[in-house]
Amino acid sequence: MRKLLVELAYNGAGFHGWQFQKNACSVAQTVQDGLEAVLKSRVPVTGCSRTDAGVHANQFYFHTVTQATIPCEKLVYALNAALPDTIAAKSCREVEESFHARYSVQWKRYLYRIHNHPVKDPFAQGLCLRYPRRLDEQLLNQAAQDFVGTHDFSAFCAAGGKEMESNVRTIYSASVTRKGDQVYFAVEGNGFLYNMVRIMVGTLLEISEKTIAPDSIPEIIASLDRSRAGRTAPAQGLYLDHVEYGGELPGETEKNK
Amino acid sequence: MRKLLVELAYNGAGFHGWQFQKNACSVAQTVQDGLEAVLKSRVPVTGCSRTDAGVHANQFYFHTVTQATIPCEKLVYALNAALPDTIAAKSCREVEESFHARYSVQWKRYLYRIHNHPVKDPFAQGLCLRYPRRLDEQLLNQAAQDFVGTHDFSAFCAAGGKEMESNVRTIYSASVTRKGDQVYFAVEGNGFLYNMVRIMVGTLLEISEKTIAPDSIPEIIASLDRSRAGRTAPAQGLYLDHVEYGGELPGETEKNK
Repeated sequence: MRKLLVELAYNGAGFHGWQFQKNACSVAQTVQDGLEAVLKSRVPVTGCSRTDAGVHANQFYFHTVTQATIPCEKLVYALNAALPDTIAAKSCREVEESFHARYSVQWKRYLYRIHNHPVKDPFAQGLCLRYPRRLDEQLLNQAAQDFVGTHDFSAFCAAGGKEMESNVRTIYSASVTRKGDQVYFAVEGNGFLYNMVRIMVGTLLEISEKTIAPDSIPEIIASLDRSRAGRTAPAQGLYLDHVEYGGELPGETEKNK
Repeated sequence: MRKLLVELAYNGAGFHGWQFQKNACSVAQTVQDGLEAVLKSRVPVTGCSRTDAGVHANQFYFHTVTQATIPCEKLVYALNAALPDTIAAKSCREVEESFHARYSVQWKRYLYRIHNHPVKDPFAQGLCLRYPRRLDEQLLNQAAQDFVGTHDFSAFCAAGGKEMESNVRTIYSASVTRKGDQVYFAVEGNGFLYNMVRIMVGTLLEISEKTIAPDSIPEIIASLDRSRAGRTAPAQGLYLDHVEYGGELPGETEKNK
């Protein structure tokens, strides 16, 4: 038996998230169906993360176990052909039996994309949040630094998402940057609670709207109270951007050069 | 009565082109309906160009005539709200009675976008041509220079498109460039025949495939024979990119600096 780790990218606009669902089209189901067409047998697929309905992935991994002897490169090619235009298979490699697509993750980066201009971008439907009022990226970048560190992020966790033993997570970096009309929130951490990034973004938007003070993120975190944080930003702007299985922490590669 | 010139951008993936059609959804019809919602009266809309089904516009203009006194800025705002996510109203200005969105055009630029990588781009569905085999952008750029000049482009005109008196057009510039996995063909001219840009792209692709010789474009043009040119590239990669009403020819702004 071979354990394979397959890298994907997908446009989540047409899917009800990664996770298998009984009555809705999921990425996992579509990928499993595509794999079955390629391997001629039904295999399990285990994702690196859950993504909500409408959330995208610039990088996503799943592992599977198969007796098929198809070379990795050929599998990528055939899987690509079997998948819809909105899911790309990018790479595949054999991994140790002990490897797990979800539990072996060292850290992840999420990106949230905002089209920040009064006029819509007709080519970005479902791919970003439209926010017409001008955002002050320097103010928001400053505020976002307070997310960095090891905290109990219960205030940034949707109700129903507290199935874990602990809501403590470590955020390595957070930034708000602008590129023309596009504003990006990027956040790297060892794990993320349910809706955590979207609530972070909603909080930053409310800071911009002056309903939350720019320096109040530490208090909000300390309160452990979801109602103190901002709204949950819509799914369509969110991208799982990078999934790291190596031992290096974010930024270490650059530092060591 | 005021004559207004309105600037749009649109994602053509969901439309059967600009032009009004009896039994299909056109951009013109959608814009006319949006204007009616804003102005509370039905007004004519005259486009700067026809675009085929599935073709996009980074810049597109139409003119209309109305008795409404709504300020231009307000019209843009209201029209944006009345239009679907895939059509953006970008600007509006009053023009002379003699101005015509189509006949006053000095020159136009088209862009053709190719995703040139074996792995699909899941976010570019309907927005580019997927071409997995590596294109040699330098070879194609060299070949494309033979499009430049004043020629009878009958060999690059779809059958049924010869309703004009003359098929002579002037091409000011043509280029093939690469930006990572994206290859762009840009062409500027005083006018374009039916499917002309798409046949130019199809010809360049066949040059890449070695079924047309790289130096044969002058002969193909001289033949006036559509069957000598390459295939018609698909609509989804084509963008009307710039429409110029000023007196300056392409590049003159830069030259005069």
